[in-house]
Amino acid sequence: MQVGILMGSDSDWQKINGVAKALDEFGVAYEINVMSAHRTPDVVKQYAEEAAGRGLFVIICAAAGAAHLAGVVASHTTLPVIGIPVPTELSGGLDSLLSTVQMPGDVPVATVGVGTGGARNAGILAVQILALSNPTLQQKLHDFRKGLVKKISEKNVNLKKIIDVK
Amino acid sequence: MQVGILMGSDSDWQKINGVAKALDEFGVAYEINVMSAHRTPDVVKQYAEEAAGRGLFVIICAAAGAAHLAGVVASHTTLPVIGIPVPTELSGGLDSLLSTVQMPGDVPVATVGVGTGGARNAGILAVQILALSNPTLQQKLHDFRKGLVKKISEKNVNLKKIIDVK
Amino acid sequence: MQVGILMGSDSDWQKINGVAKALDEFGVAYEINVMSAHRTPDVVKQYAEEAAGRGLFVIICAAAGAAHLAGVVASHTTLPVIGIPVPTELSGGLDSLLSTVQMPGDVPVATVGVGTGGARNAGILAVQILALSNPTLQQKLHDFRKGLVKKISEKNVNLKKIIDVK
Amino acid sequence: MQVGILMGSDSDWQKINGVAKALDEFGVAYEINVMSAHRTPDVVKQYAEEAAGRGLFVIICAAAGAAHLAGVVASHTTLPVIGIPVPTELSGGLDSLLSTVQMPGDVPVATVGVGTGGARNAGILAVQILALSNPTLQQKLHDFRKGLVKKISEKNVNLKKIIDVK
Amino acid sequence: MQVGILMGSDSDWQKINGVAKALDEFGVAYEINVMSAHRTPDVVKQYAEEAAGRGLFVIICAAAGAAHLAGVVASHTTLPVIGIPVPTELSGGLDSLLSTVQMPGDVPVATVGVGTGGARNAGILAVQILALSNPTLQQKLHDFRKGLVKKISEKNVNLKKIIDVK
Amino acid sequence: MQVGILMGSDSDWQKINGVAKALDEFGVAYEINVMSAHRTPDVVKQYAEEAAGRGLFVIICAAAGAAHLAGVVASHTTLPVIGIPVPTELSGGLDSLLSTVQMPGDVPVATVGVGTGGARNAGILAVQILALSNPTLQQKLHDFRKGLVKKISEKNVNLKKIIDVK
Amino acid sequence: MQVGILMGSDSDWQKINGVAKALDEFGVAYEINVMSAHRTPDVVKQYAEEAAGRGLFVIICAAAGAAHLAGVVASHTTLPVIGIPVPTELSGGLDSLLSTVQMPGDVPVATVGVGTGGARNAGILAVQILALSNPTLQQKLHDFRKGLVKKISEKNVNLKKIIDVK
Amino acid sequence: MQVGILMGSDSDWQKINGVAKALDEFGVAYEINVMSAHRTPDVVKQYAEEAAGRGLFVIICAAAGAAHLAGVVASHTTLPVIGIPVPTELSGGLDSLLSTVQMPGDVPVATVGVGTGGARNAGILAVQILALSNPTLQQKLHDFRKGLVKKISEKNVNLKKIIDVK
Repeated sequence: MQVGILMGSDSDWQKINGVAKALDEFGVAYEINVMSAHRTPDVVKQYAEEAAGRGLFVIICAAAGAAHLAGVVASHTTLPVIGIPVPTELSGGLDSLLSTVQMPGDVPVATVGVGTGGARNAGILAVQILALSNPTLQQKLHDFRKGLVKKISEKNVNLKKIIDVK
Repeated sequence: MQVGILMGSDSDWQKINGVAKALDEFGVAYEINVMSAHRTPDVVKQYAEEAAGRGLFVIICAAAGAAHLAGVVASHTTLPVIGIPVPTELSGGLDSLLSTVQMPGDVPVATVGVGTGGARNAGILAVQILALSNPTLQQKLHDFRKGLVKKISEKNVNLKKIIDVK
Repeated sequence: MQVGILMGSDSDWQKINGVAKALDEFGVAYEINVMSAHRTPDVVKQYAEEAAGRGLFVIICAAAGAAHLAGVVASHTTLPVIGIPVPTELSGGLDSLLSTVQMPGDVPVATVGVGTGGARNAGILAVQILALSNPTLQQKLHDFRKGLVKKISEKNVNLKKIIDVK
Repeated sequence: MQVGILMGSDSDWQKINGVAKALDEFGVAYEINVMSAHRTPDVVKQYAEEAAGRGLFVIICAAAGAAHLAGVVASHTTLPVIGIPVPTELSGGLDSLLSTVQMPGDVPVATVGVGTGGARNAGILAVQILALSNPTLQQKLHDFRKGLVKKISEKNVNLKKIIDVK
Repeated sequence: MQVGILMGSDSDWQKINGVAKALDEFGVAYEINVMSAHRTPDVVKQYAEEAAGRGLFVIICAAAGAAHLAGVVASHTTLPVIGIPVPTELSGGLDSLLSTVQMPGDVPVATVGVGTGGARNAGILAVQILALSNPTLQQKLHDFRKGLVKKISEKNVNLKKIIDVK
Repeated sequence: MQVGILMGSDSDWQKINGVAKALDEFGVAYEINVMSAHRTPDVVKQYAEEAAGRGLFVIICAAAGAAHLAGVVASHTTLPVIGIPVPTELSGGLDSLLSTVQMPGDVPVATVGVGTGGARNAGILAVQILALSNPTLQQKLHDFRKGLVKKISEKNVNLKKIIDVK
Repeated sequence: MQVGILMGSDSDWQKINGVAKALDEFGVAYEINVMSAHRTPDVVKQYAEEAAGRGLFVIICAAAGAAHLAGVVASHTTLPVIGIPVPTELSGGLDSLLSTVQMPGDVPVATVGVGTGGARNAGILAVQILALSNPTLQQKLHDFRKGLVKKISEKNVNLKKIIDVK
Repeated sequence: MQVGILMGSDSDWQKINGVAKALDEFGVAYEINVMSAHRTPDVVKQYAEEAAGRGLFVIICAAAGAAHLAGVVASHTTLPVIGIPVPTELSGGLDSLLSTVQMPGDVPVATVGVGTGGARNAGILAVQILALSNPTLQQKLHDFRKGLVKKISEKNVNLKKIIDVK
């Protein structure tokens, strides 16, 4: 296990499962747990304190509303913590975003965007961090970036078809 | 001690000292401590867990930004927790407000307004809660409310002077 | 009756019935009424003024938009008033939240989050306040908190199934 | 007296005195009082209920934060009520604006802009309403509008001087 | 005709037809037209300039986005102009609200809330203004207010049924 | 004259004079006028209608709050209209921005950023548009872009000094 | 080809195809490509640098979220760049709008509104710019504006039918 | 050099120099450069492309408004990129925050909070990332965390003095 994924509620899984898909693409091993900063603070504390000792390198936390999960985890470990703000009805997740990113000095949370793009990016960011000491992952990232150019070419072909049909 | 006041940073004191003044007016004993949900999570946890046993009835927490202090305290006690969102530069404290009030179900924070009015109200709210089992406080609250009518009369006299001078 | 629940419109019931469910779980007796700060101000005034005399300890008010219900009730009683901001289309209820929480000094409204989580928390907060002078409720709250840890374990089991199926 | 001006706090006077200046320009008689929807609800109720009988035609209310004053007045009278949202630190008064304007159906508040422009416009709007049955005021409004064109010409002359100096 | 209703697009009708229903309830005659501040500025100008001469007392304007219709009408008449901000996807109509209400000094728009409640209130506000010189309307408004108390009683009966079924 | 600059109030000049400086740098002739969409609508209409005939190519409009100036001008001409949202106290000018940019289909306003950067960009954008049929201006734009690289080098030298002093 | 249309993702096409329809109405030739400021920065750079040489006059860019496409294109060309903020879930596209419009001084993006109205306006704005040196387009724009008046008349007829049916 | 610090303007230095102080505390070597995503895109591209080859591990980017610097850098490297949103007048930097954090899937920016706390956290986050393969840094982080507890104790002593004086 290199990466721990935590989410505040199992109902968040549909919105953030892109994080696992991204790690799968790069062959990075991960574990997933539901735990709540507010309902199960001691579980979170224990998890965060033991994470480095258990060999984890990065912890990714997804939460909504007064989204404290990433911040609470970050307060109990010095591992890099990535926060995914889960969309809500309040301005589409502005509450989750501000609660995750506006951390006080000394205890950072590396925050990605709200929603599915952000979930995918949490995975990619974890890979980029791991790749700093892993040449194989670094190579995969380079290939991944090249692949993005190819994907866009295909999207242009698709677009032409859509427009022609119109 | 009936009320515990916590703040995330001593620099918040100027913005929220109205909470102490309000408690002073009603003769409610309180204690004040600086502790940070993120920098000193174990201190916060211990404080919250021991609060009820030490005889506290209400805990008032003031914090700014990703303002997790009230939420973290609430996760470690079943005492009522009052949250004061401290003003920031981001929309004047919208981040503090959302981080304090948008708690997930099961773990409430009784949130008051951003800034000095909110700080005063945190104190008054604590008194209102304590007064439920304290007839003396209840009487003081009634007198306090009557006093507000008198104060407004005086403000009208003042206003007349200001306008006349103009 | 220990708790009074008020809502500005019967159409709000679907959005906030979690407050009643929470009180039911703890065996706290409550009454529910629809009344409007703007359409029936005298009904609201009478209700608020008589609440303490009728034996109520806490009043919970749910309203949307320029959500004045909690504030108007608070202006006519010294009982603790809990405000639930009901979601709207404007930024998902930012109007309801600000109208409820930004009370001027001297007249607090204990505000919970916008929406279903907030409604549930209004109920839990009322229980926490009542429990201060009710050891049975205090014990129930402790059991409730322990139960949350158990629930999270079950959610993790569920999550594993969802992910495996995927 | 044709117009009643109410404000929630005498500290608001500096921000909204333009309303009185506007009424002065048109020779419309008015009275000014400080009263608070939350601190002195019965004073507000009595004032609103008696306003029509005392000969007032329009009531102008200025308040900040959870700005309920205009709404509470509107709930106790069928006279047109004009609301001035007083600026605050929260997004510059977004809370005051939403609390004033987002009234539920059946009880309108005629809301003007946040701040000094809004205060002046509250006065002009009152004049426009009074002018519907007052030909002298109607004539003054026409002259006033013509005067605005002249003022702009003078501002252009001023601007030329400023630019030349630069 | 006493009231003119203008809307920027016929697609707005579904969202704001409550304004007509409100006027119907009070027997106030009105006319409805689609015209755009931006697409047909000269039509708007002519309408606004002729409105008073044609016997209109109040003009109600509904528009969305950079909602200039009410402001443009107000710039060409001294009649009271009521603005209804039509909901949009941007924060649920925050753009419409700010574009309608934040008028510069000297040219007010009496703004009501965003959406259906606001549309209804635009009609009621027009009635309140007309009632200042129309005792019959004033009486109807008093009856209307009394009716609101009765309606709430019925809603409470309904609510009891809903809750019992649950 | 190739460019017309309009502003809603002479008090805006300090905030937007960068537009004139930008045009000066490229030797583009311009004229400046104060006129208000709301206070002097007929002056604005006449100006906009005659602009193309007088040889203007682009009209730049700066306004604050319910910033309709650019929109009203755009409704009376088919020349490109550039809108500068002038900062206000409400969220720093969010009202000005939304009122300028959220134009309905068919009548665009080319909107630049809020404040001094936006004002400068209004000037540069006008130059870019004029340069499409003016090779000299096109060349100047290329030189200008090259100059930006040089300026950054100088800023780096400055920065080094600041940091060293520290 | 006179106009280049770029979009960050082919999924944006449904939301912004009004830009192409607008150009079609005026007989302006255009090309459409999908390319991403972040996934394919070198493709974007090359496209922007070669655009003027290939004879393009205007580049229209649509993007969502941290919408950098227009800004990146603008940094590599001195042609006018028009930015369409694509709606998102975060406040309906406030992120896209701010990321597009708030460009630093020296590198403008001519920003239109969020969503379908904005997309159409991007096309019309491009036509307005091209028409400065193209009398035929200028004439078409005049006819187009006249046509808007006619369309509104038809909408009024439609509205009358809808209301009568009701 | 292990860390590269980039900022869009030398005027940002006062707001973000905490990033350098944080790195100094941990003895991490860094370099600082001013470069602009929009004014000097080729300089940024070259810097980002060469960063990994030059031995950098992390790039920290600070920018304001349509803050694209971090995103553009991230598009040209697979190193972890940390984005600091620099405060602006628009809601205190909401534009900078959204432009930095809302990146599309595949190209993450690790975003920290707006302002001085965020700048400090950018430095700490860089240290946390570097510490994953550097036991000395890991030890320093542990000591740093312990030091935070001590600092809080001192702040409590200070607070007592302030309150006593009062």
